[in-house]
Amino acid sequence: MDRVSAIDAAVRAQRGRVEALFDELARCGRTDPGFTRPSYSPEETGAHAIVARCGADLDLAIHRDIAANTTMTLPGQDRSLPPILIGSHLDTVAQGGNFDGAAGVVAGLAAVAALRALRLIPERDITVMGVRAEESVWFQVSYIGSRAALGALPDGALDVPRIDSGLSLAVHIAREGGDPDALRCGRSALDAAAIHAFLEVHIEQAPSLEEAGIPVGLCTGIPGNVRYPDVRIVGRHDHVGTPRRFRRDAAMAGAEIALALDRVWAAHEAAGCPMAVTFGRFHTDTAVHGLTTVPGAFHFSLDMRAYAAEVLTELEAAFLAAVKEVSERRGVTVALGSRAEAGVGVVSPRIRDGLAAAADALGIAIRPLGSPASHDAAAFAKAGVPMAMLFVRNANGSHNPDEAMAVDDLLDAVAILTAWLVAEACGG
Amino acid sequence: MDRVSAIDAAVRAQRGRVEALFDELARCGRTDPGFTRPSYSPEETGAHAIVARCGADLDLAIHRDIAANTTMTLPGQDRSLPPILIGSHLDTVAQGGNFDGAAGVVAGLAAVAALRALRLIPERDITVMGVRAEESVWFQVSYIGSRAALGALPDGALDVPRIDSGLSLAVHIAREGGDPDALRCGRSALDAAAIHAFLEVHIEQAPSLEEAGIPVGLCTGIPGNVRYPDVRIVGRHDHVGTPRRFRRDAAMAGAEIALALDRVWAAHEAAGCPMAVTFGRFHTDTAVHGLTTVPGAFHFSLDMRAYAAEVLTELEAAFLAAVKEVSERRGVTVALGSRAEAGVGVVSPRIRDGLAAAADALGIAIRPLGSPASHDAAAFAKAGVPMAMLFVRNANGSHNPDEAMAVDDLLDAVAILTAWLVAEACGG
Repeated sequence: MDRVSAIDAAVRAQRGRVEALFDELARCGRTDPGFTRPSYSPEETGAHAIVARCGADLDLAIHRDIAANTTMTLPGQDRSLPPILIGSHLDTVAQGGNFDGAAGVVAGLAAVAALRALRLIPERDITVMGVRAEESVWFQVSYIGSRAALGALPDGALDVPRIDSGLSLAVHIAREGGDPDALRCGRSALDAAAIHAFLEVHIEQAPSLEEAGIPVGLCTGIPGNVRYPDVRIVGRHDHVGTPRRFRRDAAMAGAEIALALDRVWAAHEAAGCPMAVTFGRFHTDTAVHGLTTVPGAFHFSLDMRAYAAEVLTELEAAFLAAVKEVSERRGVTVALGSRAEAGVGVVSPRIRDGLAAAADALGIAIRPLGSPASHDAAAFAKAGVPMAMLFVRNANGSHNPDEAMAVDDLLDAVAILTAWLVAEACGG
Repeated sequence: MDRVSAIDAAVRAQRGRVEALFDELARCGRTDPGFTRPSYSPEETGAHAIVARCGADLDLAIHRDIAANTTMTLPGQDRSLPPILIGSHLDTVAQGGNFDGAAGVVAGLAAVAALRALRLIPERDITVMGVRAEESVWFQVSYIGSRAALGALPDGALDVPRIDSGLSLAVHIAREGGDPDALRCGRSALDAAAIHAFLEVHIEQAPSLEEAGIPVGLCTGIPGNVRYPDVRIVGRHDHVGTPRRFRRDAAMAGAEIALALDRVWAAHEAAGCPMAVTFGRFHTDTAVHGLTTVPGAFHFSLDMRAYAAEVLTELEAAFLAAVKEVSERRGVTVALGSRAEAGVGVVSPRIRDGLAAAADALGIAIRPLGSPASHDAAAFAKAGVPMAMLFVRNANGSHNPDEAMAVDDLLDAVAILTAWLVAEACGG
């Protein structure tokens, strides 16, 4: 059996391990519908324990870092060489799916298990990393676990409250076994300059691959974003019969601002420029809203993302112009609240080409795919680590309970990853 | 002193009683900001007890009817003649004001107190009525107290849950001293054919009178309405990066439907046709919405109101057309939920002219005013009772904590009402 066929067979033999891991993870934070493993929650910690147990079974060196990320290391021949990291996150959005994030950690473990089965000792460490707190819905801060490990948390992040509990990130990190004081002092778990590469497998978060009939996508880039997580519009609560000229309706102002940006998006889309605009929270004030009251308060979150900094700048200008025009015309005030941004994540051409060559050798169909979503890999890219990503076909989109991923498709991605690891670190 | 001056003086002498009543009511359901006296709540019952105590002080006959409305009767010379009713409601919206509703009951008591002071015995009973449950935000049913008294509750209303407690109207009526079983058997407290007239004083719910510098408005009509209290849009929750062509964004669909109707309103307004469209609740699903999730669910309430049945029909058609167009284009489904309607409330020309003549004699400036809001008076009009209303100037609109009513303005309305009562029922 040639090397490629042996790799493929070793990967396919991991099916049972992969299925068992997903079954175990599915008992972690089940909310019916879906799964809810908030960032730095007991449910997320449960998922870390499950993957760590699997890593221990594979005789990997298990470590919990100061941000409570889990690393599982297959030691290389020369432990002083910069390691290869394979990672993704183990938290979920509220009522999300079992695969978004976790599939990347399972893929890393399956690849390392295949290397074990092939009795290959890599020249350098290969570390599978279960990352904390990637889902920014909880603290409204991006890439918390990755950036904490890299010593790149933004100022003030440790004091941000979790949206459900109201307790700070620092409190939640400490509760789940991390060391917020060390993070506050600027300590980091990883030195970006001493990481050889970061690879992430992730389910696709849209059905593009399903539409194309292709199991695996090769990431061409991760979009940057500009976010306003907590915009508040204040108008005036009035009786339902209030004539139009007296109204200061905060909800209609919110609707107009949102649709102004939606039209900008539609125009860019028609012109072939990919981007996305999402008003994830978009709501009247549940404490006081009612059938017979004109809404005097409206709240929304905004995420704008694009693959080029200029497009982000243009989008943000369109948003601010809409806020100004609508608020003046409707007689409302708009408090923008906090603003966050993340740069565009650039993929390493060398690793991307290596992954494409591996897929070609294995006879697995892939296609280039811009990631519409943000990923931990972007935090590593920003820190200067060569990065690449593979996406796995998913018919139903993610951040919902209906995520659909075939284990065969995941194993296709694992085979590509493993073949690349062999070529990159095991002497081809 | 002539008759008109004597009436005016007797009314102005009620200032202390009126102020004391508002002070007492302000201790009932204070939520800071504002006042919250839900329909059939202990807070609403507290307000009924306060006005009943005042009625007892005036030696009126106090009665609680099967719907737990409070009636306070000044007996006439011939008790068999159809009585004149003066009433309004004592519940509020959440964090509403102290005057919306209550001012009408206080006005009735002040008018009767003035008649007592003038030592006038009317030819027929004059009954001040504290009405239950006018604010349809709580049970999403209009004019509950009035219609229950008139035996005109819509089918199924007794089983509707209150929006906050989840308990049925029947349970809440029983808790506050009413008799839901009697209502269920079709008993009524009032025979519409045996009521001489229903008069209601109410604060204006917009600042039209403030704008015009006039203390009192004479109602020209009460709008009919069509309501969809619980519309639900179902799309699909997706990851924030999902490309446009895959999205089924329920919130953007809601925004488009709302603004389609808002444009219809703006066009009618420009053409001089008064109406109102209100999306009082307008929100993503708070259990699952988040910064990084495309909204797969959106909810709204809709109240459309106009002074002509044709306009209502046209508005509803525009709404349903927008629902169809937007839902097809956005790939979402729209469940309209329940629908309710109330007919246009016609004012008695005879009483309206009588009130205008009284204002003229007193030298109080009034102006005709279409009520933008619904009122208990509309339920009496629909039952065939001759009806009229007076509005009192309010700079800040109602259904908010900042309602502003000068006692002098209210006393202007009470003076007009009292002069009319004297002319109508005390031999002029």
